[in-house]
Amino acid sequence: METLYIVKIGGNVIDDENKLKLFLNDFSQIPGLKLLVHGGGKIATEVSKALGIEPQLVDGRRITDAGSLRVVTMVYAGLINKNIVAQLQALQCNALGLTGADANLIPAKKRQVAAIDYGFVGDIEAAAVNAPGLQLFLNQGFTPVVAPLTHDKAGNLLNTNADTIASTLAVALASLYQVSLIYCFEKKGVLQNVQDEKSLIPEITPATYPDLRANGIIAQGMIPKMDNALQALEQGVKAVHIAHADDLLLITQQQLAGTVLHL
Amino acid sequence: METLYIVKIGGNVIDDENKLKLFLNDFSQIPGLKLLVHGGGKIATEVSKALGIEPQLVDGRRITDAGSLRVVTMVYAGLINKNIVAQLQALQCNALGLTGADANLIPAKKRQVAAIDYGFVGDIEAAAVNAPGLQLFLNQGFTPVVAPLTHDKAGNLLNTNADTIASTLAVALASLYQVSLIYCFEKKGVLQNVQDEKSLIPEITPATYPDLRANGIIAQGMIPKMDNALQALEQGVKAVHIAHADDLLLITQQQLAGTVLHL
Repeated sequence: METLYIVKIGGNVIDDENKLKLFLNDFSQIPGLKLLVHGGGKIATEVSKALGIEPQLVDGRRITDAGSLRVVTMVYAGLINKNIVAQLQALQCNALGLTGADANLIPAKKRQVAAIDYGFVGDIEAAAVNAPGLQLFLNQGFTPVVAPLTHDKAGNLLNTNADTIASTLAVALASLYQVSLIYCFEKKGVLQNVQDEKSLIPEITPATYPDLRANGIIAQGMIPKMDNALQALEQGVKAVHIAHADDLLLITQQQLAGTVLHL
Repeated sequence: METLYIVKIGGNVIDDENKLKLFLNDFSQIPGLKLLVHGGGKIATEVSKALGIEPQLVDGRRITDAGSLRVVTMVYAGLINKNIVAQLQALQCNALGLTGADANLIPAKKRQVAAIDYGFVGDIEAAAVNAPGLQLFLNQGFTPVVAPLTHDKAGNLLNTNADTIASTLAVALASLYQVSLIYCFEKKGVLQNVQDEKSLIPEITPATYPDLRANGIIAQGMIPKMDNALQALEQGVKAVHIAHADDLLLITQQQLAGTVLHL
Protein backbone atom coordinates (compact mmCIF):
# COMPACT_ATOMS: atom_id res chain seq x y z
CA MET A 1 0.00 0.00 0.00
CA GLU A 2 1.08 3.52 -0.76
CA THR A 3 2.00 5.83 2.13
CA LEU A 4 -0.35 8.70 2.97
CA TYR A 5 0.67 11.48 5.34
CA ILE A 6 -2.20 13.11 7.20
CA VAL A 7 -0.88 16.29 8.79
CA LYS A 8 -2.76 18.38 11.34
CA ILE A 9 -1.66 21.97 11.85
CA GLY A 10 -2.96 24.01 14.76
CA GLY A 11 -3.84 27.57 15.62
CA ASN A 12 -0.43 28.63 16.83
CA VAL A 13 1.09 28.29 13.36
CA ILE A 14 -2.01 29.49 11.52
CA ASP A 15 -2.06 32.73 13.52
CA ASP A 16 1.48 33.64 12.44
CA GLU A 17 1.81 34.52 8.76
CA ASN A 18 5.53 33.74 8.61
CA LYS A 19 5.31 30.49 10.53
CA LEU A 20 2.46 29.38 8.30
CA LYS A 21 4.47 30.21 5.17
CA LEU A 22 7.45 28.16 6.38
CA PHE A 23 5.20 25.29 7.40
CA LEU A 24 3.36 25.21 4.05
CA ASN A 25 6.67 25.31 2.22
CA ASP A 26 7.77 22.20 4.15
CA PHE A 27 4.39 20.50 3.74
CA SER A 28 4.46 21.05 -0.03
CA GLN A 29 7.77 19.17 -0.18
CA ILE A 30 6.42 15.94 1.27
CA PRO A 31 6.65 13.52 -1.65
CA GLY A 32 3.67 11.35 -2.56
CA LEU A 33 0.21 11.44 -1.08
CA LYS A 34 -0.64 13.94 1.63
CA LEU A 35 -3.64 15.57 3.26
CA LEU A 36 -3.73 18.62 5.51
CA VAL A 37 -6.23 19.26 8.31
CA HIS A 38 -6.15 22.73 9.80
CA GLY A 39 -7.59 24.18 12.97
CA GLY A 40 -8.89 27.62 13.67
CA GLY A 41 -6.60 29.82 15.72
CA LYS A 42 -7.34 33.19 17.20
CA ILE A 43 -8.74 34.69 14.00
CA ALA A 44 -12.20 33.27 14.69
CA THR A 45 -12.17 34.77 18.19
CA GLU A 46 -11.12 38.15 16.78
CA VAL A 47 -13.81 38.10 14.09
CA SER A 48 -16.43 37.03 16.67
CA LYS A 49 -15.48 39.93 18.91
CA ALA A 50 -15.53 42.40 16.04
CA LEU A 51 -19.01 41.18 15.06
CA GLY A 52 -20.16 41.43 18.69
CA ILE A 53 -20.76 37.69 19.05
CA GLU A 54 -20.03 36.67 22.64
CA PRO A 55 -18.82 33.12 23.37
CA GLN A 56 -21.70 31.15 24.92
CA LEU A 57 -20.80 28.96 27.87
CA VAL A 58 -23.06 26.40 29.55
CA ASP A 59 -21.60 24.72 32.66
CA GLY A 60 -18.20 26.06 31.61
CA ARG A 61 -18.41 24.43 28.20
CA ARG A 62 -18.32 26.40 25.01
CA ILE A 63 -21.49 26.23 22.93
CA THR A 64 -21.51 26.74 19.17
CA ASP A 65 -24.62 28.86 18.66
CA ALA A 66 -25.86 30.01 15.24
CA GLY A 67 -23.75 33.18 15.34
CA SER A 68 -20.58 31.30 16.25
CA LEU A 69 -21.24 28.74 13.51
CA ARG A 70 -21.47 31.57 10.97
CA VAL A 71 -18.13 32.91 12.17
CA VAL A 72 -16.28 29.58 12.05
CA THR A 73 -17.79 28.87 8.62
CA MET A 74 -16.44 32.21 7.39
CA VAL A 75 -13.04 31.93 9.06
CA TYR A 76 -12.25 28.20 8.84
CA ALA A 77 -13.82 27.30 5.47
CA GLY A 78 -13.27 30.72 3.88
CA LEU A 79 -10.38 32.81 5.12
CA ILE A 80 -8.01 30.17 6.47
CA ASN A 81 -8.79 27.30 4.11
CA LYS A 82 -8.64 29.30 0.88
CA ASN A 83 -5.51 31.21 1.85
CA ILE A 84 -3.77 27.92 2.58
CA VAL A 85 -4.99 26.54 -0.77
CA ALA A 86 -3.75 29.60 -2.68
CA GLN A 87 -0.36 29.44 -0.97
CA LEU A 88 0.03 25.71 -1.65
CA GLN A 89 -0.92 26.25 -5.29
CA ALA A 90 1.90 28.82 -5.52
CA LEU A 91 4.21 26.05 -4.22
CA GLN A 92 3.12 23.69 -7.03
CA CYS A 93 1.07 21.60 -4.60
CA ASN A 94 -2.32 20.89 -6.17
CA ALA A 95 -4.41 21.75 -3.11
CA LEU A 96 -8.17 21.24 -2.96
CA GLY A 97 -9.93 22.95 -0.06
CA LEU A 98 -12.72 20.94 1.52
CA THR A 99 -15.11 20.79 4.44
CA GLY A 100 -16.92 17.65 5.54
CA ALA A 101 -19.96 18.85 3.59
CA ASP A 102 -18.11 18.95 0.26
CA ALA A 103 -18.55 15.68 -1.63
CA ASN A 104 -20.30 14.49 1.57
CA LEU A 105 -16.86 13.67 2.93
CA ILE A 106 -17.63 13.74 6.66
CA PRO A 107 -21.26 13.30 7.71
CA ALA A 108 -21.73 14.02 11.41
CA LYS A 109 -24.32 13.83 14.18
CA LYS A 110 -25.22 16.94 16.14
CA ARG A 111 -23.96 16.41 19.68
CA GLN A 112 -26.59 16.26 22.38
CA VAL A 113 -25.39 14.99 25.74
CA ALA A 114 -27.96 14.61 28.49
CA ALA A 115 -29.31 18.06 29.33
CA ILE A 116 -26.62 20.04 27.47
CA ASP A 117 -27.21 21.15 23.91
CA TYR A 118 -23.74 21.96 22.60
CA GLY A 119 -25.20 23.78 19.64
CA PHE A 120 -23.84 23.15 16.17
CA VAL A 121 -21.14 20.67 17.15
CA GLY A 122 -20.73 17.51 15.08
CA ASP A 123 -19.63 14.11 16.35
CA ILE A 124 -18.08 11.89 13.71
CA GLU A 125 -17.01 8.30 13.19
CA ALA A 126 -14.61 6.73 10.75
CA ALA A 127 -17.19 4.32 9.32
CA ALA A 128 -19.29 7.23 8.03
CA VAL A 129 -16.41 9.02 6.25
CA ASN A 130 -16.60 9.01 2.44
CA ALA A 131 -13.24 7.26 2.04
CA PRO A 132 -13.73 6.49 -1.69
CA GLY A 133 -14.28 10.22 -2.29
CA LEU A 134 -11.01 11.12 -0.57
CA GLN A 135 -9.26 8.26 -2.36
CA LEU A 136 -10.47 9.64 -5.68
CA PHE A 137 -9.07 13.10 -4.93
CA LEU A 138 -5.75 11.69 -3.66
CA ASN A 139 -5.29 9.32 -6.59
CA GLN A 140 -5.99 12.15 -9.05
CA GLY A 141 -3.07 14.08 -7.61
CA PHE A 142 -4.94 16.50 -5.37
CA THR A 143 -3.86 17.40 -1.86
CA PRO A 144 -7.03 17.75 0.23
CA VAL A 145 -6.95 20.67 2.68
CA VAL A 146 -9.67 20.01 5.21
CA ALA A 147 -11.32 22.69 7.37
CA PRO A 148 -12.81 21.55 10.69
CA LEU A 149 -16.45 21.64 9.62
CA THR A 150 -18.79 18.74 9.00
CA HIS A 151 -22.50 18.51 8.14
CA ASP A 152 -25.61 16.68 9.33
CA LYS A 153 -26.88 15.70 5.85
CA ALA A 154 -29.98 17.78 6.59
CA GLY A 155 -28.49 21.04 5.33
CA ASN A 156 -26.63 22.18 8.45
CA LEU A 157 -22.90 22.67 8.85
CA LEU A 158 -21.42 21.54 12.17
CA ASN A 159 -18.25 22.46 14.03
CA THR A 160 -15.93 19.48 14.69
CA ASN A 161 -12.57 19.50 16.47
CA ALA A 162 -9.69 19.44 13.97
CA ASP A 163 -7.66 16.86 15.95
CA THR A 164 -10.66 14.55 15.85
CA ILE A 165 -11.11 15.08 12.11
CA ALA A 166 -7.45 14.22 11.52
CA SER A 167 -7.56 10.96 13.51
CA THR A 168 -10.96 9.98 12.10
CA LEU A 169 -9.78 10.49 8.51
CA ALA A 170 -6.61 8.51 9.35
CA VAL A 171 -8.71 5.56 10.54
CA ALA A 172 -11.13 5.83 7.61
CA LEU A 173 -8.23 5.66 5.14
CA ALA A 174 -6.15 3.03 7.00
CA SER A 175 -7.43 0.16 4.87
CA LEU A 176 -6.51 2.00 1.64
CA TYR A 177 -3.12 3.48 2.53
CA GLN A 178 -0.23 3.13 4.99
CA VAL A 179 -1.31 6.15 7.00
CA SER A 180 1.11 8.24 9.06
CA LEU A 181 -0.74 10.79 11.15
CA ILE A 182 1.34 13.81 12.18
CA TYR A 183 0.10 16.36 14.71
CA CYS A 184 2.16 19.52 14.32
CA PHE A 185 2.18 22.08 17.10
CA GLU A 186 4.46 24.55 18.90
CA LYS A 187 6.29 22.06 21.18
CA LYS A 188 8.98 19.53 20.32
CA GLY A 189 6.56 16.70 21.09
CA VAL A 190 5.19 15.17 24.27
CA LEU A 191 7.45 16.47 27.05
CA GLN A 192 8.26 15.00 30.48
CA ASN A 193 8.33 18.57 31.73
CA VAL A 194 6.20 20.95 29.65
CA GLN A 195 8.62 23.83 30.49
CA ASP A 196 11.64 21.95 29.16
CA GLU A 197 11.84 21.37 25.41
CA LYS A 198 14.75 19.00 26.02
CA SER A 199 12.60 16.60 28.03
CA LEU A 200 11.06 15.04 24.91
CA ILE A 201 9.52 11.59 25.26
CA PRO A 202 10.60 10.02 21.95
CA GLU A 203 8.20 7.08 22.03
CA ILE A 204 4.88 6.17 23.59
CA THR A 205 3.05 2.85 23.31
CA PRO A 206 -0.18 1.51 24.82
CA ALA A 207 2.09 -0.13 27.42
CA THR A 208 3.82 3.10 28.54
CA TYR A 209 0.83 5.46 28.24
CA PRO A 210 -1.07 4.56 31.46
CA ASP A 211 1.92 5.47 33.68
CA LEU A 212 2.51 8.77 31.86
CA ARG A 213 -1.10 9.67 32.42
CA ALA A 214 -1.19 8.48 36.04
CA ASN A 215 1.89 10.59 36.82
CA GLY A 216 0.29 13.68 35.31
CA ILE A 217 2.94 13.96 32.60
CA ILE A 218 0.20 13.68 30.02
CA ALA A 219 -2.56 15.96 31.23
CA GLN A 220 -5.29 18.37 30.15
CA GLY A 221 -5.54 19.03 26.40
CA MET A 222 -3.02 16.33 25.59
CA ILE A 223 -5.25 13.54 26.97
CA PRO A 224 -7.95 13.55 24.26
CA LYS A 225 -5.20 13.92 21.61
CA MET A 226 -3.41 10.83 22.99
CA ASP A 227 -6.61 8.84 23.42
CA ASN A 228 -7.55 9.59 19.81
CA ALA A 229 -4.05 8.72 18.64
CA LEU A 230 -3.89 5.36 20.42
CA GLN A 231 -7.38 4.48 19.16
CA ALA A 232 -6.23 5.34 15.64
CA LEU A 233 -3.28 2.93 15.98
CA GLU A 234 -5.57 0.17 17.21
CA GLN A 235 -7.73 0.78 14.14
CA GLY A 236 -4.94 0.33 11.61
CA VAL A 237 -3.11 3.66 11.37
CA LYS A 238 0.57 2.83 11.00
CA ALA A 239 2.10 5.56 13.16
CA VAL A 240 1.13 8.74 14.94
CA HIS A 241 3.65 11.54 15.45
CA ILE A 242 3.32 14.55 17.73
CA ALA A 243 5.95 17.10 16.79
CA HIS A 244 6.96 20.70 16.30
CA ALA A 245 5.73 22.21 13.03
CA ASP A 246 9.37 22.95 12.12
CA ASP A 247 10.22 19.23 12.27
CA LEU A 248 7.63 18.00 9.75
CA LEU A 249 10.12 17.05 7.03
CA LEU A 250 12.42 15.26 9.51
CA ILE A 251 9.53 12.93 10.29
CA THR A 252 8.56 12.29 6.68
CA GLN A 253 12.27 11.61 5.98
CA GLN A 254 12.15 9.08 8.82
CA GLN A 255 14.65 10.91 10.96
CA LEU A 256 14.17 11.15 14.71
CA ALA A 257 11.95 14.05 15.74
CA GLY A 258 9.01 14.55 18.04
CA THR A 259 7.14 11.81 19.82
CA VAL A 260 6.12 8.72 17.92
CA LEU A 261 3.21 6.58 19.06
CA HIS A 262 3.00 3.00 17.90
CA LEU A 263 1.56 -0.30 19.04
CA MET B 1 -21.60 15.57 -26.44
CA GLU B 2 -23.32 15.53 -23.09
CA THR B 3 -25.25 18.60 -21.98
CA LEU B 4 -23.85 20.70 -19.13
CA TYR B 5 -25.91 23.39 -17.42
CA ILE B 6 -23.88 26.23 -15.94
CA VAL B 7 -26.18 28.24 -13.69
CA LYS B 8 -25.34 31.61 -12.17
CA ILE B 9 -27.34 32.76 -9.16
CA GLY B 10 -27.09 36.31 -7.90
CA GLY B 11 -27.24 38.23 -4.67
CA ASN B 12 -30.99 38.85 -4.65
CA VAL B 13 -31.74 35.14 -4.18
CA ILE B 14 -28.74 34.46 -1.94
CA ASP B 15 -29.82 37.20 0.48
CA ASP B 16 -33.23 35.58 1.04
CA GLU B 17 -33.09 32.27 2.91
CA ASN B 18 -36.42 31.03 1.57
CA LYS B 19 -35.79 32.06 -2.03
CA LEU B 20 -32.40 30.34 -1.87
CA LYS B 21 -33.97 27.16 -0.51
CA LEU B 22 -36.54 27.06 -3.32
CA PHE B 23 -33.88 27.79 -5.91
CA LEU B 24 -31.52 25.08 -4.66
CA ASN B 25 -34.40 22.61 -4.60
CA ASP B 26 -35.04 23.36 -8.30
CA PHE B 27 -31.33 23.34 -9.15
CA SER B 28 -30.87 19.92 -7.51
CA GLN B 29 -33.55 18.52 -9.81
CA ILE B 30 -31.74 19.36 -13.05
CA PRO B 31 -30.87 15.95 -14.46
CA GLY B 32 -27.36 15.23 -15.68
CA LEU B 33 -24.31 17.47 -15.43
CA LYS B 34 -24.58 20.85 -13.76
CA LEU B 35 -22.39 23.51 -12.19
CA LEU B 36 -23.43 26.44 -10.00
CA VAL B 37 -21.70 29.82 -9.80
CA HIS B 38 -22.87 32.08 -7.02
CA GLY B 39 -22.41 35.76 -6.37
CA GLY B 40 -22.12 37.62 -3.14
CA GLY B 41 -25.15 39.59 -2.08
CA LYS B 42 -25.54 42.01 0.75
CA ILE B 43 -24.00 39.73 3.37
CA ALA B 44 -20.47 40.83 2.44
CA THR B 45 -21.48 44.48 2.80
CA GLU B 46 -23.04 43.78 6.20
CA VAL B 47 -19.98 41.90 7.44
CA SER B 48 -17.68 44.66 6.12
CA LYS B 49 -19.69 47.28 7.98
CA ALA B 50 -19.71 45.23 11.18
CA LEU B 51 -15.93 44.84 10.95
CA GLY B 52 -15.53 48.56 10.29
CA ILE B 53 -14.13 48.09 6.77
CA GLU B 54 -15.20 51.01 4.59
CA PRO B 55 -15.65 50.49 0.83
CA GLN B 56 -12.72 52.11 -0.98
CA LEU B 57 -13.57 54.10 -4.09
CA VAL B 58 -11.09 55.53 -6.60
CA ASP B 59 -12.60 57.68 -9.37
CA GLY B 60 -15.99 56.25 -8.39
CA ARG B 61 -14.81 52.67 -8.86
CA ARG B 62 -14.82 50.17 -6.06
CA ILE B 63 -11.39 48.93 -5.01
CA THR B 64 -10.82 45.56 -3.37
CA ASP B 65 -8.27 46.36 -0.69
CA ALA B 66 -6.75 43.75 1.64
CA GLY B 67 -9.54 44.15 4.22
CA SER B 68 -12.28 43.77 1.60
CA LEU B 69 -10.55 40.71 0.15
CA ARG B 70 -10.56 39.10 3.61
CA VAL B 71 -14.28 39.78 3.93
CA VAL B 72 -15.24 38.37 0.51
CA THR B 73 -13.02 35.34 1.15
CA MET B 74 -14.89 34.73 4.41
CA VAL B 75 -18.35 35.41 3.04
CA TYR B 76 -18.18 34.05 -0.52
CA ALA B 77 -15.88 31.03 -0.07
CA GLY B 78 -16.93 30.30 3.52
CA LEU B 79 -20.41 31.31 4.58
CA ILE B 80 -22.29 31.33 1.26
CA ASN B 81 -20.43 28.57 -0.55
CA LYS B 82 -20.49 26.01 2.27
CA ASN B 83 -24.10 26.68 3.21
CA ILE B 84 -25.11 26.08 -0.40
CA VAL B 85 -23.02 22.90 -0.46
CA ALA B 86 -24.60 21.59 2.78
CA GLN B 87 -28.11 22.35 1.49
CA LEU B 88 -27.46 20.66 -1.87
CA GLN B 89 -26.04 17.61 -0.08
CA ALA B 90 -29.31 17.40 1.89
CA LEU B 91 -31.09 17.35 -1.50
CA GLN B 92 -28.98 14.38 -2.68
CA CYS B 93 -26.95 16.60 -5.00
CA ASN B 94 -23.26 15.74 -4.58
CA ALA B 95 -22.01 19.32 -4.32
CA LEU B 96 -18.33 20.23 -4.18
CA GLY B 97 -17.57 23.80 -3.15
CA LEU B 98 -14.70 25.43 -5.02
CA THR B 99 -12.90 28.69 -5.62
CA GLY B 100 -10.64 29.35 -8.57
CA ALA B 101 -7.65 28.55 -6.31
CA ASP B 102 -8.86 25.01 -5.55
CA ALA B 103 -7.32 22.52 -7.95
CA ASN B 104 -5.93 25.62 -9.72
CA LEU B 105 -9.28 25.85 -11.53
CA ILE B 106 -9.22 29.55 -12.44
CA PRO B 107 -5.83 31.29 -12.54
CA ALA B 108 -6.20 35.06 -12.90
CA LYS B 109 -4.17 38.20 -13.45
CA LYS B 110 -4.41 41.06 -10.98
CA ARG B 111 -6.10 43.94 -12.77
CA GLN B 112 -4.03 47.06 -13.29
CA VAL B 113 -5.45 49.59 -15.71
CA ALA B 114 -3.39 52.67 -16.43
CA ALA B 115 -3.08 54.66 -13.22
CA ILE B 116 -5.77 52.80 -11.27
CA ASP B 117 -4.85 49.89 -9.02
CA TYR B 118 -8.13 48.06 -8.53
CA GLY B 119 -6.66 46.10 -5.65
CA PHE B 120 -7.20 42.38 -5.42
CA VAL B 121 -9.37 42.00 -8.51
CA GLY B 122 -8.64 39.14 -10.91
CA ASP B 123 -9.10 39.19 -14.69
CA ILE B 124 -9.58 35.78 -16.24
CA GLU B 125 -9.65 34.11 -19.63
CA ALA B 126 -11.14 30.83 -20.79
CA ALA B 127 -7.84 29.49 -22.15
CA ALA B 128 -6.31 29.55 -18.66
CA VAL B 129 -9.17 27.65 -16.95
CA ASN B 130 -8.32 24.14 -15.77
CA ALA B 131 -11.05 22.51 -17.90
CA PRO B 132 -9.74 18.94 -17.39
CA GLY B 133 -9.99 19.47 -13.62
CA LEU B 134 -13.62 20.54 -13.89
CA GLN B 135 -14.31 17.70 -16.33
CA LEU B 136 -12.89 15.23 -13.82
CA PHE B 137 -15.19 16.50 -11.06
CA LEU B 138 -18.24 16.53 -13.35
CA ASN B 139 -17.61 13.07 -14.76
CA GLN B 140 -17.16 11.67 -11.24
CA GLY B 141 -20.69 12.82 -10.40
CA PHE B 142 -19.86 15.98 -8.48
CA THR B 143 -21.72 19.25 -8.88
CA PRO B 144 -19.14 22.04 -8.61
CA VAL B 145 -20.36 25.07 -6.64
CA VAL B 146 -18.05 27.92 -7.55
CA ALA B 147 -17.49 31.02 -5.41
CA PRO B 148 -16.40 34.21 -7.22
CA LEU B 149 -12.75 34.08 -6.16
CA THR B 150 -9.71 33.29 -8.27
CA HIS B 151 -5.96 33.34 -7.57
CA ASP B 152 -2.78 34.71 -9.10
CA LYS B 153 -0.71 31.49 -8.72
CA ALA B 154 1.62 33.49 -6.46
CA GLY B 155 -0.35 32.78 -3.29
CA ASN B 156 -2.95 35.55 -3.49
CA LEU B 157 -6.69 35.17 -3.81
CA LEU B 158 -8.42 37.63 -6.14
CA ASN B 159 -12.00 38.86 -6.42
CA THR B 160 -13.62 38.15 -9.80
CA ASN B 161 -17.15 39.01 -10.94
CA ALA B 162 -19.44 35.97 -10.73
CA ASP B 163 -21.12 36.68 -14.12
CA THR B 164 -17.68 36.70 -15.72
CA ILE B 165 -16.71 33.46 -14.00
CA ALA B 166 -19.90 31.80 -15.28
CA SER B 167 -19.36 32.85 -18.91
CA THR B 168 -15.64 32.08 -18.80
CA LEU B 169 -16.24 28.58 -17.44
CA ALA B 170 -18.94 28.10 -20.11
CA VAL B 171 -16.46 28.96 -22.87
CA ALA B 172 -13.69 26.86 -21.30
CA LEU B 173 -15.99 23.81 -21.22
CA ALA B 174 -17.66 24.37 -24.60
CA SER B 175 -15.39 21.95 -26.43
CA LEU B 176 -16.14 19.18 -23.89
CA TYR B 177 -19.89 19.59 -23.39
CA GLN B 178 -22.99 21.11 -24.97
CA VAL B 179 -23.03 24.03 -22.56
CA SER B 180 -26.19 25.93 -21.66
CA LEU B 181 -25.40 28.99 -19.58
CA ILE B 182 -28.30 30.24 -17.44
CA TYR B 183 -28.16 33.56 -15.59
CA CYS B 184 -30.84 33.53 -12.90
CA PHE B 185 -31.94 36.78 -11.35
CA GLU B 186 -35.03 38.57 -10.00
CA LYS B 187 -36.59 39.63 -13.34
CA LYS B 188 -38.40 37.52 -15.93
CA GLY B 189 -35.54 38.07 -18.37
CA VAL B 190 -34.43 40.99 -20.54
CA LEU B 191 -37.38 43.40 -20.57
CA GLN B 192 -38.40 46.04 -23.13
CA ASN B 193 -39.53 48.12 -20.17
CA VAL B 194 -37.71 47.29 -16.97
CA GLN B 195 -40.85 48.24 -14.94
CA ASP B 196 -43.07 45.80 -16.85
CA GLU B 197 -42.48 42.09 -16.26
CA LYS B 198 -44.79 41.35 -19.21
CA SER B 199 -42.51 43.12 -21.69
CA LEU B 200 -40.11 40.17 -21.91
CA ILE B 201 -37.87 39.98 -24.98
CA PRO B 202 -37.96 36.23 -25.64
CA GLU B 203 -34.98 36.08 -27.98
CA ILE B 204 -31.84 38.11 -28.70
CA THR B 205 -29.27 37.43 -31.39
CA PRO B 206 -26.13 39.27 -32.51
CA ALA B 207 -28.37 40.76 -35.24
CA THR B 208 -30.98 42.21 -32.87
CA TYR B 209 -28.63 43.24 -30.04
CA PRO B 210 -27.16 46.47 -31.50
CA ASP B 211 -30.62 48.08 -31.87
CA LEU B 212 -31.65 47.10 -28.34
CA ARG B 213 -28.50 48.70 -27.03
CA ALA B 214 -28.76 51.80 -29.21
CA ASN B 215 -32.38 52.33 -28.04
CA GLY B 216 -31.31 52.10 -24.40
CA ILE B 217 -33.44 49.00 -23.79
CA ILE B 218 -30.29 47.16 -22.79
CA ALA B 219 -28.42 49.53 -20.52
CA GLN B 220 -26.20 49.78 -17.45
CA GLY B 221 -25.47 46.51 -15.66
CA MET B 222 -27.09 44.45 -18.38
CA ILE B 223 -24.54 45.55 -21.01
CA PRO B 224 -21.49 43.65 -19.68
CA LYS B 225 -23.74 40.62 -19.03
CA MET B 226 -24.95 40.70 -22.65
CA ASP B 227 -21.50 41.36 -24.09
CA ASN B 228 -20.14 38.39 -22.12
CA ALA B 229 -23.06 36.24 -23.21
CA LEU B 230 -22.73 37.01 -26.93
CA GLN B 231 -18.98 36.42 -26.74
CA ALA B 232 -19.65 33.08 -25.07
CA LEU B 233 -21.96 32.08 -27.95
CA GLU B 234 -19.33 33.06 -30.50
CA GLN B 235 -16.87 30.85 -28.62
CA GLY B 236 -18.98 27.71 -28.75
CA VAL B 237 -21.48 27.92 -25.91
CA LYS B 238 -24.74 26.48 -27.22
CA ALA B 239 -27.23 28.85 -25.60
CA VAL B 240 -27.37 31.56 -22.98
CA HIS B 241 -30.54 32.17 -20.98
CA ILE B 242 -31.34 35.15 -18.79
CA ALA B 243 -34.30 34.31 -16.59
CA HIS B 244 -36.05 34.54 -13.25
CA ALA B 245 -34.66 32.17 -10.63
CA ASP B 246 -38.15 30.63 -10.31
CA ASP B 247 -38.10 29.61 -13.98
CA LEU B 248 -34.90 27.55 -13.92
CA LEU B 249 -36.56 24.17 -14.42
CA LEU B 250 -38.76 25.49 -17.25
CA ILE B 251 -35.58 26.29 -19.15
CA THR B 252 -33.88 22.98 -18.49
CA GLN B 253 -37.13 21.27 -19.57
CA GLN B 254 -36.91 23.31 -22.78
CA GLN B 255 -40.11 25.19 -22.16
CA LEU B 256 -40.36 28.87 -22.98
CA ALA B 257 -39.12 31.12 -20.20
CA GLY B 258 -36.83 34.09 -19.92
CA THR B 259 -34.71 35.51 -22.69
CA VAL B 260 -32.67 33.15 -24.82
CA LEU B 261 -29.57 34.36 -26.64
CA HIS B 262 -28.31 32.43 -29.60
CA LEU B 263 -26.34 32.98 -32.78
